[in-house]
Amino acid sequence: MKVFAIGDIVGRTGRRAVRELLPQIIKTEKVDFVIANAENAAGGFGLTEGVMEELLDYGIDILTMGNHTWDNKEIFDFIDESDKIIRPYNYPKGTPGVGIQTIEKDEFTLGVINLIGRVYIGNYLSPFRSLDKAIQELKEQVNAIIVDFHAEATAEKEALGWYSDGRVSVLVGTHTHIQTADDRILPEGTAYITDLGLTGAVNSILGMNIDEPLERFLTQMPNRFKVAKGDTKLSGLIIEIDDKTAKAISVKRIARVYTVD
Amino acid sequence: MKVFAIGDIVGRTGRRAVRELLPQIIKTEKVDFVIANAENAAGGFGLTEGVMEELLDYGIDILTMGNHTWDNKEIFDFIDESDKIIRPYNYPKGTPGVGIQTIEKDEFTLGVINLIGRVYIGNYLSPFRSLDKAIQELKEQVNAIIVDFHAEATAEKEALGWYSDGRVSVLVGTHTHIQTADDRILPEGTAYITDLGLTGAVNSILGMNIDEPLERFLTQMPNRFKVAKGDTKLSGLIIEIDDKTAKAISVKRIARVYTVD
Amino acid sequence: MKVFAIGDIVGRTGRRAVRELLPQIIKTEKVDFVIANAENAAGGFGLTEGVMEELLDYGIDILTMGNHTWDNKEIFDFIDESDKIIRPYNYPKGTPGVGIQTIEKDEFTLGVINLIGRVYIGNYLSPFRSLDKAIQELKEQVNAIIVDFHAEATAEKEALGWYSDGRVSVLVGTHTHIQTADDRILPEGTAYITDLGLTGAVNSILGMNIDEPLERFLTQMPNRFKVAKGDTKLSGLIIEIDDKTAKAISVKRIARVYTVD
Amino acid sequence: MKVFAIGDIVGRTGRRAVRELLPQIIKTEKVDFVIANAENAAGGFGLTEGVMEELLDYGIDILTMGNHTWDNKEIFDFIDESDKIIRPYNYPKGTPGVGIQTIEKDEFTLGVINLIGRVYIGNYLSPFRSLDKAIQELKEQVNAIIVDFHAEATAEKEALGWYSDGRVSVLVGTHTHIQTADDRILPEGTAYITDLGLTGAVNSILGMNIDEPLERFLTQMPNRFKVAKGDTKLSGLIIEIDDKTAKAISVKRIARVYTVD
Ligand SMILES: [Fe+2]
Ligand SMILES: [Fe+2]
Ligand SMILES: [Fe+2]
Ligand SMILES: [Fe+2]
Ligand SMILES: [Fe+2]
Ligand SMILES: [Fe+2]
Ligand SMILES: [Fe+2]
Ligand SMILES: [Fe+2]
Repeated sequence: MKVFAIGDIVGRTGRRAVRELLPQIIKTEKVDFVIANAENAAGGFGLTEGVMEELLDYGIDILTMGNHTWDNKEIFDFIDESDKIIRPYNYPKGTPGVGIQTIEKDEFTLGVINLIGRVYIGNYLSPFRSLDKAIQELKEQVNAIIVDFHAEATAEKEALGWYSDGRVSVLVGTHTHIQTADDRILPEGTAYITDLGLTGAVNSILGMNIDEPLERFLTQMPNRFKVAKGDTKLSGLIIEIDDKTAKAISVKRIARVYTVD
Repeated sequence: MKVFAIGDIVGRTGRRAVRELLPQIIKTEKVDFVIANAENAAGGFGLTEGVMEELLDYGIDILTMGNHTWDNKEIFDFIDESDKIIRPYNYPKGTPGVGIQTIEKDEFTLGVINLIGRVYIGNYLSPFRSLDKAIQELKEQVNAIIVDFHAEATAEKEALGWYSDGRVSVLVGTHTHIQTADDRILPEGTAYITDLGLTGAVNSILGMNIDEPLERFLTQMPNRFKVAKGDTKLSGLIIEIDDKTAKAISVKRIARVYTVD
Repeated sequence: MKVFAIGDIVGRTGRRAVRELLPQIIKTEKVDFVIANAENAAGGFGLTEGVMEELLDYGIDILTMGNHTWDNKEIFDFIDESDKIIRPYNYPKGTPGVGIQTIEKDEFTLGVINLIGRVYIGNYLSPFRSLDKAIQELKEQVNAIIVDFHAEATAEKEALGWYSDGRVSVLVGTHTHIQTADDRILPEGTAYITDLGLTGAVNSILGMNIDEPLERFLTQMPNRFKVAKGDTKLSGLIIEIDDKTAKAISVKRIARVYTVD
Repeated sequence: MKVFAIGDIVGRTGRRAVRELLPQIIKTEKVDFVIANAENAAGGFGLTEGVMEELLDYGIDILTMGNHTWDNKEIFDFIDESDKIIRPYNYPKGTPGVGIQTIEKDEFTLGVINLIGRVYIGNYLSPFRSLDKAIQELKEQVNAIIVDFHAEATAEKEALGWYSDGRVSVLVGTHTHIQTADDRILPEGTAYITDLGLTGAVNSILGMNIDEPLERFLTQMPNRFKVAKGDTKLSGLIIEIDDKTAKAISVKRIARVYTVD
């Protein structure tokens, strides 16, 4: 069973990378399930229903979110209706949406958990204890579990990776928009990478046009960021999971560029 | 001209990777200059004179530092004496040590600048404006400039990368202890990577023993971290610089493991 | 029924203010219960058993803690033995010590809750939802409830004040070491103050000797803080609670100086 | 010479307190100069030209700002035209507006400096070293200097207070919207208070309607804050300065409520 986990898709430029590159990757790599982080998919900030449907059309099965979940207010109209989108599971009780979904294909059921980090991000429930709870909730119903841990600090990400080892098939990081080169299979069989990286403009600051964030660093003044244009890349990790043991067998890092003429 | 920039060396385990792997890399890759981040080289926290000399003996030319510069108080005894160590240039006026050094080999002079980020780290001078000033100070005296930008936030690192493009030969990130997979040459000729990664224990949290930081995340209580043992890796980037134009010609990411029997 | 809540006691200088001024205040103001924040009572960092006993001897009934709870490792030896000390209730499950205590005097039972804020401090359980739970746990056993909310951000403190209004008799803030002038009784009968203020040296930075923190702001370098000496003050709030309704009837701010010859 | 320094004015409710209470205070207290923090004066976020003129009409001489300086984009239209408004002096070079103004009355010239803190706020120039520079710039032209230090952390505020002692006549804190009870004259003659407090709605969270910030603390979700209505207060400090020595002679804390029928 093969899962492709895609890193933060930023705006139209990121969606173009998905549209142009994903179908072929699914085919050549024989991917069974695709998940992607969509917190920046609509104009760089949040998600709309139209963008969600567009991304599902390209072949993504489940969309995960992060600290930008609520940036676009449209999300309140569909987050409780759709079973294709999850927001961090460790949000406080009463938060719209859910943090877990399952998908079934060929009698194999995959459980997907979205978690958010706390270091430098915000005051959520513990991602560590929430992972315990989510695994408990899922484990009777699914063949394998994959976690998108949306976090900033590398220590928090590695720590949750080790904490999850042997209990989930895959734990991938998102949020930093920079792919890390540390993809591996941990000793107990969990595939791990600190960050899947950016799906968006190659020449950018985290997918956004360079000038505005650079200006903000120089002046410390607020300004409006725009999604960068031009060549775009699709970043992520393909993980092969043993159907019987649910252990990861292999990982393959993906960072493919689609060049605009 | 070839420069090898090595990511944060963590403790004895990290130094072992340097000792066992660096000499051969220098030889086979024909490396001319070696710089390395040493802020965690002594027991995971700071640097001692003995450890500095040990690392210089292994073939490193210049040691850079970061937010752990002052962790080991011994540094005050030698930081003003040595011309092989630099601390962030954008520390306040009056700080011990310097933020720039030059090294000469075969009539080629390399200027090395150490900068520290501010996002999630601390209140230092602007790394952007300090970079301008440091380049101004160096540019008449050197053939090429290399910057170690010790920072947390990927946006700040990419922003300084773009800001430096065409004005320095190399800007490498350190501090996260996780190597990123985004090494490239920017359009105006500056070699860039968001983070060189960890030089230290393969099975660890950022080079430290797994149990203690994991326990801290679970309990939110203070405890003492220890350097992890076992298999160790050397991480970094080799950059080839054109002797005439000072532009980067090629980059090669290094992440080599030394296995303990 | 009268309660005197004392703000962060810093070191020997702070303890001297308690020793010299508290007995008389208890007498002239007819105080029934005394609580005090002791997170900085031992040398400015944490609490020892000796210091705890000293403070109880001076007439304090219950000691509360905060972000410095674990600064002095001695606390692990007695925190689970003593029923006179509480640490924040909203620490993760499994943390040593407890977050609630009760004291009885003249057939009136007071419940004391210690909570810690999250904004700019750390990743604890929600102080809001923890307050709900603590009240639930206490309300059948006590005549009145008093809360020490140890927090930094004024918004978080005022918000918890309004959230608690009518459900507890008193909510006092600690941690900033500066007394605020906003003591009042909220509309539903809860006495409130954003911060009780410093019990410690008058000429100091938050109770510590001026030179070292000032130097740290100037240089951004680590150094060791010392408890300031000289004239000392006792800061807090006296709250009169209606024995029948458990509503606060009056508040009186205390900031009394003891002058050293 | 008497100066009245007013704490953060929040929205229409805060402006009403100024309108209804300031003229009488100026008269009965014989106030010569009035400064006020206006960063929240327009709808709780930033300042407009209309609001600026309204406040100057009520008798304020100079308006200071803070972390909300740029919240209302209208400010870019008048900040460089007006000599009645200052933004933090320690913003990066090139920032619109200025950080110092002088006002003259009866042959006495007052210099006003606005500074912003860095702890928990942002990456600005050092308020400590910027104060040195601003004093240098001002001292030949003025009879007395008053500083509005807009900052969060009490340690940073007390530290700058001690650092300024004897070099300026007054250093007042703003930003926390809660008046502190620590007004005093430091040993070398500088009048000091950690925070002037809120000019705005009595029943509020920092001047804003209670429900929305409370909801945000409970849910961790974004929402829109509104200026609170009802009874309103004017908070600040009146400082008497010796005309000859420029030392503070007396301080009087003001927290006056205007009740709406
Ligand atoms: Fe993102
Ligand atoms: Fe994110
Ligand atoms: Fe490091
Ligand atoms: Fe570091
Ligand atoms: Fe504290
Ligand atoms: Fe304290
Ligand atoms: Fe404000
Ligand atoms: Fe502010």
